[in-house]
Amino acid sequence: MAGGGGDLVSNKQVIFRDYVTGFPRESDMQLTSGGTIKLKVPEGSNNTILVKNLYLSCDPYMRILMKKGDDLVTSYTPGSPVTGLGVGRVLDSRHPDFKEGDLVWGTTGWEEYSLITAPQGFFKIQNTDVPLSYYTGILGMPGLTAYAGFYEVCAPKEGEYVFISAASGAVGQLVGQFAKLLGCYVVGSAGSPEKVDLLKNKFGFDEAFNYKEEPDLNAALKRYFPDGIDIYFENVGGKMLDAVLLNMRVHGRIAACGMVSQYNLEKPEDVCNLMSIVYKRVSIKGFVVFDYYHLYSKFLEVVLPYIREGKITYVEDIVEGLENASAALVGLFSGQNVGKQVVVVARD
Amino acid sequence: MAGGGGDLVSNKQVIFRDYVTGFPRESDMQLTSGGTIKLKVPEGSNNTILVKNLYLSCDPYMRILMKKGDDLVTSYTPGSPVTGLGVGRVLDSRHPDFKEGDLVWGTTGWEEYSLITAPQGFFKIQNTDVPLSYYTGILGMPGLTAYAGFYEVCAPKEGEYVFISAASGAVGQLVGQFAKLLGCYVVGSAGSPEKVDLLKNKFGFDEAFNYKEEPDLNAALKRYFPDGIDIYFENVGGKMLDAVLLNMRVHGRIAACGMVSQYNLEKPEDVCNLMSIVYKRVSIKGFVVFDYYHLYSKFLEVVLPYIREGKITYVEDIVEGLENASAALVGLFSGQNVGKQVVVVARD
Repeated sequence: MAGGGGDLVSNKQVIFRDYVTGFPRESDMQLTSGGTIKLKVPEGSNNTILVKNLYLSCDPYMRILMKKGDDLVTSYTPGSPVTGLGVGRVLDSRHPDFKEGDLVWGTTGWEEYSLITAPQGFFKIQNTDVPLSYYTGILGMPGLTAYAGFYEVCAPKEGEYVFISAASGAVGQLVGQFAKLLGCYVVGSAGSPEKVDLLKNKFGFDEAFNYKEEPDLNAALKRYFPDGIDIYFENVGGKMLDAVLLNMRVHGRIAACGMVSQYNLEKPEDVCNLMSIVYKRVSIKGFVVFDYYHLYSKFLEVVLPYIREGKITYVEDIVEGLENASAALVGLFSGQNVGKQVVVVARD
Repeated sequence: MAGGGGDLVSNKQVIFRDYVTGFPRESDMQLTSGGTIKLKVPEGSNNTILVKNLYLSCDPYMRILMKKGDDLVTSYTPGSPVTGLGVGRVLDSRHPDFKEGDLVWGTTGWEEYSLITAPQGFFKIQNTDVPLSYYTGILGMPGLTAYAGFYEVCAPKEGEYVFISAASGAVGQLVGQFAKLLGCYVVGSAGSPEKVDLLKNKFGFDEAFNYKEEPDLNAALKRYFPDGIDIYFENVGGKMLDAVLLNMRVHGRIAACGMVSQYNLEKPEDVCNLMSIVYKRVSIKGFVVFDYYHLYSKFLEVVLPYIREGKITYVEDIVEGLENASAALVGLFSGQNVGKQVVVVARD
């Protein structure tokens, strides 16, 4: 399959311009024609695959990579394409595990075609009776995040009281539905009436509220959880976390998946109610999905039937074309997306 | 044994005067002659024991009971004696599990003699080859706190990097020695040169520092933990916790035993580095020793031999007489005690 030849085609790219402080703007990225690329893995590039990118994923963690890095985070390189999770089709392969025509998902570039020099982290897509874009969300990293975060980190029990912030997002909507399937009481917060409506009427949450309309988050939580919260699935941090701490039940558990409200701040918001952790024997556990990738097959076995049987609903917010990718990503941080934000580069 | 008769004796008491805000003062308590008490359990008071108090314990949690209570905390009653853990001798019993002469420890009153109407929570002292006062500390609640907090909550491994705040206190000194016995690298913080000296030269910590002499706690921690902290045994909260969060290693664990630096504040100090929890997959787990009382026998089996063989050292700060009890308790919150603060009411 690999070798000389291969068409020479143009390769549009979304370039990361420079490190970002505050809220990211479209102008922090730039669409370029990107020159040309030969649709073959170059001679001598063993273990490399060439992927045609189909669907790109906009995820909150990408904001973290826009900051100048430190010892924990390898940030984006100014002048190089944005990278992120995506679904693609293998056009050429010099890696024994992949062949032309394979559908895959993994970390790719925001461009039409990507040479992947370390495809070991890519998953092959075996089930194509569901939309391919799902592998950027419910069947990809966010889905596994919801699954591992809820079942492994939160150790939930039937009947428990569950609160989810950023609940209509890719992860939150799924955590809420897992919790309902287990028989929990589930409340979500989101940032618009439309999202609140989704939570209650599409995802089947027991209650939902718009945090932007709540001047007193503590009072809002007391209204929805008069007996307190057993499990908090934390996606936002800051003021919401502080209010939640006041409302946790004894032996409550907080799974800290992300703190998206904090990513754009120069200085993070203060939290002052940590004493509750001691008084109520609460645990807070930060986790990242990469520690749970070994559960991916098991996760698919659980979630694929739920999707096929209609037991789980999934909402995507799909924009068309690389030229709209940077706006879609920026919109994520002001909550403009409704459901999982996906960018279509090509449909096949 | 029980019945009529019994000498009528005076019963000095330390009375809690009123709810406290800010740092407690001696004048928040008052020594009174307390009237007289008959040294017999009254007729009809079944399941009650009469205890002569020998040693009283000064513990940080007592500050919490000085505040006006809420749904989580039942505070002291103004006009009634302070209560706390203590060691006593049973003078009379109408409870089947206790008999005259038994040595016991449990929650008693700050007075010479106490009628205990629910002695189920009392432990009988079986091993008297060690000082009785030890049952207010290393062999009592603080000892079990250190044991459960370190072994059960922190899940420590040989070679890990352990940091302990308030390290010369009743709990901290023991946690540090457990960690050394396991083969960990152990650093403690305390509030005076004398305590730092104790940590290094008596308890065998690898390093120790005086937090009052460190203008930048983050820099201090980086000095002692260039590779970061695996386990933080949290006794103080606030600024120290915030600095520790910046220095945790991936998969680090924080056992939140107490936050004594916060107990006297009207408004708790802010913590702003909680993002580290997500980035480094850190867990924070609040715990209270009462959830681990079932481990008490097992704990004694571990710790008594350590004491007898001299593998663990224990330092007490003993004051004589109920008349000095309130000063001793108040001193705990400004760190005047060196080692476990004990009050002797009587020696037998």
